[in-house]
Amino acid sequence: MEAPQWQVSEWLNSKRLSLAGLRGRVVALHAFQMLCPGCVSHGVPQAMRIRQAFAADRLVVVGLHSVFEHHEVMTSQALRAFVDEYKLTIPIGVDAPSADGIPKTMRAYGLRGTPSLVIIDQMGRIAEHWFGRPDDMTVGAAIGRLVAPAQFDAGPTNGCDANGCTV
Amino acid sequence: MEAPQWQVSEWLNSKRLSLAGLRGRVVALHAFQMLCPGCVSHGVPQAMRIRQAFAADRLVVVGLHSVFEHHEVMTSQALRAFVDEYKLTIPIGVDAPSADGIPKTMRAYGLRGTPSLVIIDQMGRIAEHWFGRPDDMTVGAAIGRLVAPAQFDAGPTNGCDANGCTV
Amino acid sequence: MEAPQWQVSEWLNSKRLSLAGLRGRVVALHAFQMLCPGCVSHGVPQAMRIRQAFAADRLVVVGLHSVFEHHEVMTSQALRAFVDEYKLTIPIGVDAPSADGIPKTMRAYGLRGTPSLVIIDQMGRIAEHWFGRPDDMTVGAAIGRLVAPAQFDAGPTNGCDANGCTV
Amino acid sequence: MEAPQWQVSEWLNSKRLSLAGLRGRVVALHAFQMLCPGCVSHGVPQAMRIRQAFAADRLVVVGLHSVFEHHEVMTSQALRAFVDEYKLTIPIGVDAPSADGIPKTMRAYGLRGTPSLVIIDQMGRIAEHWFGRPDDMTVGAAIGRLVAPAQFDAGPTNGCDANGCTV
Repeated sequence: MEAPQWQVSEWLNSKRLSLAGLRGRVVALHAFQMLCPGCVSHGVPQAMRIRQAFAADRLVVVGLHSVFEHHEVMTSQALRAFVDEYKLTIPIGVDAPSADGIPKTMRAYGLRGTPSLVIIDQMGRIAEHWFGRPDDMTVGAAIGRLVAPAQFDAGPTNGCDANGCTV
Repeated sequence: MEAPQWQVSEWLNSKRLSLAGLRGRVVALHAFQMLCPGCVSHGVPQAMRIRQAFAADRLVVVGLHSVFEHHEVMTSQALRAFVDEYKLTIPIGVDAPSADGIPKTMRAYGLRGTPSLVIIDQMGRIAEHWFGRPDDMTVGAAIGRLVAPAQFDAGPTNGCDANGCTV
Repeated sequence: MEAPQWQVSEWLNSKRLSLAGLRGRVVALHAFQMLCPGCVSHGVPQAMRIRQAFAADRLVVVGLHSVFEHHEVMTSQALRAFVDEYKLTIPIGVDAPSADGIPKTMRAYGLRGTPSLVIIDQMGRIAEHWFGRPDDMTVGAAIGRLVAPAQFDAGPTNGCDANGCTV
Repeated sequence: MEAPQWQVSEWLNSKRLSLAGLRGRVVALHAFQMLCPGCVSHGVPQAMRIRQAFAADRLVVVGLHSVFEHHEVMTSQALRAFVDEYKLTIPIGVDAPSADGIPKTMRAYGLRGTPSLVIIDQMGRIAEHWFGRPDDMTVGAAIGRLVAPAQFDAGPTNGCDANGCTV
């Protein structure tokens, strides 16, 4: 299924982004709300781990602030304070509000809530879509079908330490 | 590179396994020592998460007890007690000892120590090889290039909980 | 040193509380900001663990929302949404704002930032004061000098499990 | 209740210790088995945190290897390898074996299994006794009734970081 266009009222950390402009790269779209506990403890840190695990010219991580509750306090001004405090550097779009309280991109993607993670392939099609806390192994596997991970080496250097034991 | 044959003196939780017999499935070979702290805290739990994330008919997780230190106490009898206490159910091979203290499969694969994780593809070739603590995102990505993950859904059911917030 | 009076503009989850009214009980005063990452990940959960570990008639946990940055978005309305999303049930006072941006109770106590944890004894004197992430063992020890912990038992029931092994 | 004498067949990391010789100091006696998962993941690290949180001239942490299962592989030789791999430096006594498989000190203290943690006060009396996973807050509180914690400061130094936010 082709990923719907993003309807974003404002971008943080980035000029305007579009799916068409990202064609050729995998996109990990992370929908969150700044006051959603599971987003703060799980979703946002996982989005950062995705950012680390793959090369930036192959995969783009995009945040989407999809506010469907407590609209009056999760404003874009509040989001900017959140982004400042949590030192987030990924591009984040403010999902465009609608009359019924469910923002437009959230509606278009049929998201059940936050956090949601949508993986969009190099041709702009939805490859995977999770709500809640998918584990890193599963998320990595789904992205890995589309793009190779960056190099990684984390072994101990000598003898035994918390990482392991060397010969 | 073709994965070397396994040289195993004894199997736990399984009859004898060979790479040839597993052709057509991906193999995650997890080399560990029962008294290696990084294996107990990181490697073994990660092997269990791999086991969970992929279907058993597509991917096999195999433990390899590659003892290169404290040989006198990390015997196969001690390993059986460890497997009992930790309730491990994956097949585990005892890496065949050699005169120089480095077991034979460990030597053949050129492992630097424990934990080591080797991913072998459906044709029996080494696809990836890590020493120490590769993160789940990276391991998942490497395996995901070879095989799709199992289904996963972990969203909250109503309102906000530790997993997230529903519409 | 006698603990300064609290200067609070508004109470959540409680009618007005005063130190004088809590005389005879130990008070754990937890100063935080809703957008401070260390407060959300460490301070607030630790305050909840203090709440669990001691009997409510012996020890009172009181939150203090001491906003010294991003005042425009960490309003009491926003705090109410935060309290709702994180399902916090302890009494929380909004530290009274002042002209220089440092709220009045924070100033009176000389807090260096958030999270801060102040332990006040049964006679209203400051017994301990930490800024940042004191570990649970240390916090427990400081409170334990003043009041006994509640009963606790967490052993496994049979054989070995993640908690331990029974005879 | 007065704490029973220790019946220990061998000491690691220490010359022979006795309760009488430790009079005047608090003793945290940590009974464990090297192959008990809850001991390795919870009990031993908690014993190390107790060691850190209190001054050594006020509180002594003593390990007790109380083997009641898999005796044939949890030998004192195996324990030495475990102590080496996990880099444990606290004194550890090997609980003296008995004919029925329950070691003598374990029997004398009525321990239900491992891990168990017994707090003995400055006069040699049992002050507290837990089986399984008591939380750090509770353990700290029980010890804190007997002895003050060491100094601790863990605040951030500037701006916001993972520890908190400074003024």
